[in-house]
Amino acid sequence: MKTAIIGATGYGGLELIRLLQNHPYLEVVSLHASSANSEPLFRQYPHLQHILDKNIEDIHTEHIASKAELVFLATPPGVARSIAPRLLAHGMRVIDLSGDFRLRDRHTYETWYKREGGDELHGAVYGLSEWQRDAIAKAQFISNPGCYATATLLAAAPLMKEGLADSLIVDAKSGVSGAGKSPTTMTHFPEIQDNMKIYKVNEHQHIPEIEQMLLEWNEEAKPITFSTHLVPITRGIMVTMYAQSKREVTAHFLQDLYKQSYEESSFVRIREIGIYPSPKEVCGSNYCDIGVTYDERTGRITVVAVIDNLMKGAAGQAVQNANLSLGLDEQVGIRFVPMYP
Amino acid sequence: MKTAIIGATGYGGLELIRLLQNHPYLEVVSLHASSANSEPLFRQYPHLQHILDKNIEDIHTEHIASKAELVFLATPPGVARSIAPRLLAHGMRVIDLSGDFRLRDRHTYETWYKREGGDELHGAVYGLSEWQRDAIAKAQFISNPGCYATATLLAAAPLMKEGLADSLIVDAKSGVSGAGKSPTTMTHFPEIQDNMKIYKVNEHQHIPEIEQMLLEWNEEAKPITFSTHLVPITRGIMVTMYAQSKREVTAHFLQDLYKQSYEESSFVRIREIGIYPSPKEVCGSNYCDIGVTYDERTGRITVVAVIDNLMKGAAGQAVQNANLSLGLDEQVGIRFVPMYP
Amino acid sequence: MKTAIIGATGYGGLELIRLLQNHPYLEVVSLHASSANSEPLFRQYPHLQHILDKNIEDIHTEHIASKAELVFLATPPGVARSIAPRLLAHGMRVIDLSGDFRLRDRHTYETWYKREGGDELHGAVYGLSEWQRDAIAKAQFISNPGCYATATLLAAAPLMKEGLADSLIVDAKSGVSGAGKSPTTMTHFPEIQDNMKIYKVNEHQHIPEIEQMLLEWNEEAKPITFSTHLVPITRGIMVTMYAQSKREVTAHFLQDLYKQSYEESSFVRIREIGIYPSPKEVCGSNYCDIGVTYDERTGRITVVAVIDNLMKGAAGQAVQNANLSLGLDEQVGIRFVPMYP
Amino acid sequence: MKTAIIGATGYGGLELIRLLQNHPYLEVVSLHASSANSEPLFRQYPHLQHILDKNIEDIHTEHIASKAELVFLATPPGVARSIAPRLLAHGMRVIDLSGDFRLRDRHTYETWYKREGGDELHGAVYGLSEWQRDAIAKAQFISNPGCYATATLLAAAPLMKEGLADSLIVDAKSGVSGAGKSPTTMTHFPEIQDNMKIYKVNEHQHIPEIEQMLLEWNEEAKPITFSTHLVPITRGIMVTMYAQSKREVTAHFLQDLYKQSYEESSFVRIREIGIYPSPKEVCGSNYCDIGVTYDERTGRITVVAVIDNLMKGAAGQAVQNANLSLGLDEQVGIRFVPMYP
Repeated sequence: MKTAIIGATGYGGLELIRLLQNHPYLEVVSLHASSANSEPLFRQYPHLQHILDKNIEDIHTEHIASKAELVFLATPPGVARSIAPRLLAHGMRVIDLSGDFRLRDRHTYETWYKREGGDELHGAVYGLSEWQRDAIAKAQFISNPGCYATATLLAAAPLMKEGLADSLIVDAKSGVSGAGKSPTTMTHFPEIQDNMKIYKVNEHQHIPEIEQMLLEWNEEAKPITFSTHLVPITRGIMVTMYAQSKREVTAHFLQDLYKQSYEESSFVRIREIGIYPSPKEVCGSNYCDIGVTYDERTGRITVVAVIDNLMKGAAGQAVQNANLSLGLDEQVGIRFVPMYP
Repeated sequence: MKTAIIGATGYGGLELIRLLQNHPYLEVVSLHASSANSEPLFRQYPHLQHILDKNIEDIHTEHIASKAELVFLATPPGVARSIAPRLLAHGMRVIDLSGDFRLRDRHTYETWYKREGGDELHGAVYGLSEWQRDAIAKAQFISNPGCYATATLLAAAPLMKEGLADSLIVDAKSGVSGAGKSPTTMTHFPEIQDNMKIYKVNEHQHIPEIEQMLLEWNEEAKPITFSTHLVPITRGIMVTMYAQSKREVTAHFLQDLYKQSYEESSFVRIREIGIYPSPKEVCGSNYCDIGVTYDERTGRITVVAVIDNLMKGAAGQAVQNANLSLGLDEQVGIRFVPMYP
Repeated sequence: MKTAIIGATGYGGLELIRLLQNHPYLEVVSLHASSANSEPLFRQYPHLQHILDKNIEDIHTEHIASKAELVFLATPPGVARSIAPRLLAHGMRVIDLSGDFRLRDRHTYETWYKREGGDELHGAVYGLSEWQRDAIAKAQFISNPGCYATATLLAAAPLMKEGLADSLIVDAKSGVSGAGKSPTTMTHFPEIQDNMKIYKVNEHQHIPEIEQMLLEWNEEAKPITFSTHLVPITRGIMVTMYAQSKREVTAHFLQDLYKQSYEESSFVRIREIGIYPSPKEVCGSNYCDIGVTYDERTGRITVVAVIDNLMKGAAGQAVQNANLSLGLDEQVGIRFVPMYP
Repeated sequence: MKTAIIGATGYGGLELIRLLQNHPYLEVVSLHASSANSEPLFRQYPHLQHILDKNIEDIHTEHIASKAELVFLATPPGVARSIAPRLLAHGMRVIDLSGDFRLRDRHTYETWYKREGGDELHGAVYGLSEWQRDAIAKAQFISNPGCYATATLLAAAPLMKEGLADSLIVDAKSGVSGAGKSPTTMTHFPEIQDNMKIYKVNEHQHIPEIEQMLLEWNEEAKPITFSTHLVPITRGIMVTMYAQSKREVTAHFLQDLYKQSYEESSFVRIREIGIYPSPKEVCGSNYCDIGVTYDERTGRITVVAVIDNLMKGAAGQAVQNANLSLGLDEQVGIRFVPMYP
C-alpha cells in the first residue's frame, strides 16, 4: 500500500522511515515536511545514506492524495487539525501521531493544550492498539496515543477494568528524544546529562487522554496525579504507578490478572513476580513490558511499565494500528528484537 | 581536632577525604580499611596525587584511639556494630555513616537488613542535622542517616509535623555511586547507561529509619510506599513524594510552610512556586533543594527534594554533624558551591 | 540452515540471537555456553521474553554437530582453539568471533595474547568481508576480525593499497559493550560515566591482525601506533587515523579513491567532503561509515571510520560472512536501518 | 581586591563565580552581561540560591572601573576586543578568557577566527601559567589560553623544549560544556549522548595559539595535525598526542623529563609509567594530569593529558593567573580536590 509520511524530519518521522523500510506491505512513496528541500534527506540525516534517496516535499494534500492511500502525520501540534480533514476527504487512511484528535471534548483540549481546538474528531479512533482493536479495524482515521499515555494506560487497564483501583498516582520518567529534535536549554547536553528534571507537574497534556480512557473503562475513575521527569537517556519511558487497592489482593493474583488481560497481546509482556522491566529491555522494539506487585503493609499496588517512546510510544504503535486497520497481523514489519545492551 | 577515617577507600570515605582537606578544624591523621596497603592511597586513586600521601592502615581500634579524637566510620554493613563500641569506650567521638545504629528496634533491624542486630544503640543519636541539632550537639555518637532517608525526611518533615499528611508515597531516584564502588551486573556500564532500573520495591532498608522518624514527628504516621530507582547519573538523589492532603491548601501555603520550617537551615533551599530542583543544582555541595506544589483536582501534594548522595546523603552531612557536635558553625568546611554544569 | 551459537550469553552471542531471529535462511536450533541452565535464556535476559524460549545447553561438540550445520563461536579467548577443530572435523561450517584463529604466526599470537597458541589455523580465512569475499566464499572456517581491526582496516585499505601511506597512527575510541558483559572496576558506571580512559597503549591484541592484513596489502607497511580509549557510550567504535601522505593529494582525490574502493560494498558508506560520521549513525546496523580529508599545511591524511562494535565489529559481520560462505547476498538478514537517535 | 566578572551568565562566568566564592583575596563586587536583568542571577541559575543574590548588570566600562580593580572577561568572541582597551585605560587589571587577544598576528587571527582582528594586543601576556610565570607576574593584561591549547601545550612543552619532537599529531576529546551554554543541534542531548562527533578537523581556532607557543619553545616546530572530538561528558578534555621521536628514548627517560619539567608546578601531576590519567581524576579541580610513554616498535612517543575544561581550561587558570599577577601563591582559592567519582 502506497504510504506517505508528513513530518518526516522529526524523530517520529525518522522512526516511521526506519520501520517502513522493512515492512512487506507498506511502501513509502513520499516524505513531506514544512521544510521541503531539494536535497535527499540523507544529507541532513546521514544514517539514511545508501538506504533512502528521497527528498522532502511540500505538504500539498491533493498531490499527496493522488500518490498515496495511507498517510502518517508526525507533525507538530496544530498541523494535523488543519490537514487531516482534507486528506480524509480524499478518501485516504490517516494515522495521526500528534495530539490533535485525541480528546473528544473541545474545552478539555483547549485547557490542556493551550491552543484553539475544533468541534469534531472526524471519526478519529483512539489507537491504543491492545484495547481498541475492533474500533481500529473499522477506522479510516486513527489518532495514535501519546507516549506517556500508552505506557500509563497499558499499566492501568487491568486494575481499572477489574475495579481494583479508581485513583492513580503516576510517576513517569522519559528519555530526551520524547522532547523532539529541536534544541532547547532543557535538552542541552550539559544541562540534562548526569541530571534529571521534573516538569509539567500535574499539567502534562497527556493527562486528559488518559483520564478519558480510564473513564471508559471504569466510570468511577478519578483525576490522576501525574508527574513527568526527563532522565538522561535517549529512548525509553518508565511509568511507576501507585494505587490504593480497593480490596486485599496478592502479588500472584495481580500477576495472573495482568497475564490474562494481555494473553492475546504479543507486544505486552508481563514479568515474573519480583522482576521489573527496564527501558533497555524494549529498546528499538514495540514491546510494553510490565511488572506488578502488592504491598501488604500499605495495601497499595505498584505497577511498572516500560516502552520505547519512539516505538510503542509513537511510530511502532502507529504501524501496529496501520496493520490492524488493514486487516494484517498486527506484528507485521515491527517484530524487532529489542537491542540489548 | 585529630580525625581518623575508617572505610577510607569506598566512595563515602573518598568524599570525606575531599571535604576534610579543606576543613579548618578537622585534620585527617590516619586512613583505615580492611584492605590495608603499604602504598599511598593515591596509587589506587590517582585523583589524590599531590594532595595526600597517606597509606591505608589496618583497623586497629586501640591504635586509632591513641592518635585521633574523632572518627568517621564509612564501612560496609555490620562492621560498625563491632568496632564502634570499642572506639566509644576509648572516649572517641564517633560518626557512623553505615546503617548499623539507626534503628532502635532490634527486630526491625533484623527484618530489613537481613542480618543479626544488637540490643543497644550505645547512645547513638540519629543525625538528621536540620531536625536533631540539639541532640547532636550533646552526642558522643552520631548515626548518620541514609542517603534516601535524608532526602525523604527533609521533604516530609513540614507535612508531617503540620499534620497535613500521614501516608506518603515516595518515588526515589538515585545515581549509581549510591551503590558503592564494587562492580556488579546492575552497575555495569552497558546495563545501566541509557537505562534505569527499579529495585527493592517497598523493601529498601532505609524504609524503617524513615518510618521511625516520621512517627516521632507525627504519631499517626502510617507505613510508607517506597520505590527506589537507579538512574544513569553518578551523583544525586531525587525524591518525588506524593501525599493526599488532610485539608485543602494552596501551593503558596505549602511554600510558606516549607520556607518557615527551614528558615534557620542554610543547607535547605526552597524553590519558588512552579520551580523544581534538579540534582545537578546541588552536585558536590551539601544542599538539599526542595520544590512543593498542590493539585486542586486531586487534593494531593507533590514534594520534590534533591541532594548529592555522597554529600548531604553521606559525607557532607557527617561533617555537618561533626561541626554541630563540636559546637562549630554547621557550615564550616562544607560551604561548597554546587558544581554547575 | 540449522545453526548453533556457542557463547550465547555474552554480548556477541545475544546480538547473534537478535540477528538470526530475522534471518530467512539461518535457523537457530540450539544455544550453548559453559554456564548451561535448565531455565529459558529469557529469565536471565528478559528482553527475549515472548521471542525465544530456548535454554542454554552444554558445549558438547558431537551433539551440536548432530543437530546443526553451521556454528557461531562467540566464546572467551582460548575456547575456540580447543573446540573449533572438533566441530570442523564433523564437517560443520564454523565462524569464530574470538581472536583464536586470526594470527598466522604462533609466536605473534603468544606475544600479544599472552597465552599459549597452536601451530595451525585449520584453514581459517580472515573474515574481513569487503576485502576477502572470494576466500570467504570458499571457506569452511572463518575467523571473524576484531572490532577495532574491522574499523581500522576498512579505513586503511584504500590508502595502503594505493601506496599513499605506509605508517599509520590510529586513535581508536570504543563503547563499553566492547569490554564484554563481566563487571569490572573499569566498566563500573561511576568510574566510566562522564569520563573516558585510554588503555593498552600500543599493546592491544588487535594490533597484530591489523598489521598482518596491512602487509598483505602493502609489503612496505610498518608497525602501527595504536591507542584504544573507552568512552561512555554502550555501542560504537570511532577510529581516527592519521597518515603522512606519500604524495600531495586533495580531499576530493581521497574521497573518490574511497568511493571507488567501496563501490561494490553496500555496507561501507563514504561521506561527502567535510562531513564525518558518528557512531550513532550506524547504531544497530552493519554499516561502516567513513570520512576522509587532507591537510595541506602538514601533508597528512585524516580518516574517520565508525561501526557498531557488536554489529559490523562482531555479530553483523559474522552473519555477513555466513551469507558469503553460503552463496547468499551478503546483506540477507542484516539490512537493519541504523536506530537514530 | 574588588573584582568584576563580565560574561557572568555563561559556563565560564559561572565557574568564576564558584571559585571566587571561596577566594580569600578576590571579592566579586559585580556581575555583568549583555543580558542585564533586574532579578538576582539565582533565578536563572538556582544552584546559586542562598549563595549569591547579585543581579546581572549592564556592561558599562566606566562604572565597572569605578567599583572594581580586577576584571575577568568571559565573553563571546569579539566582545573583549572592544571593551578590554577601555578597561585597561582605566588602569584595571584585565584577564580575558576569550580568544580575542591570544594571537600576535592579525592575519592569523582573521584566518582562523573568520572575523576582523585588530593590530595590537595592548600588552596582553599569554597566560599559560606554568610556562609564563614571570611575564604574568608583571602583566596588567592577561590573555587566558584556550581549553584545548592548555592541555596540548602542557603535554607538548617538555618534548618541544628538549627538541625530542618538532611535529605533533593531536587527537583531542572534549566534554560538551566546552561548546558553551547555547543549545545547538550538535549539543542536543539525543544527538550527542551515546555518541561522539569529530569536528573542525585541522580547522580549530586553538591551532594557531598552540603553534605560536610551540615556535617560541622550538623554532623548528612545524604545523600540527589537530582533531577535536565532542564526547558525551559534561566537563573534561583529554588530549592524546603522538610524535615521532627525534632520537631513541625510553618511557623512564620521558617520565623523568616530564617530572623535572613540572617539579615546581603543583597543578601538573605526572603519572607513573604505564598509568594514564582520565578526566574524572581532575574534575572540578585545576590539575592537569599527564601520562607519557614510548613505543620501541615505531619510535613514537604518546602523551596523554587531561584537564577540566572549565577549570584549568578556563576559570581555574584565570584565577591562577590573577594570583600570579597579584604576587599571591598561585594556588590560593583554587586548591580544590577533584570530585571523584
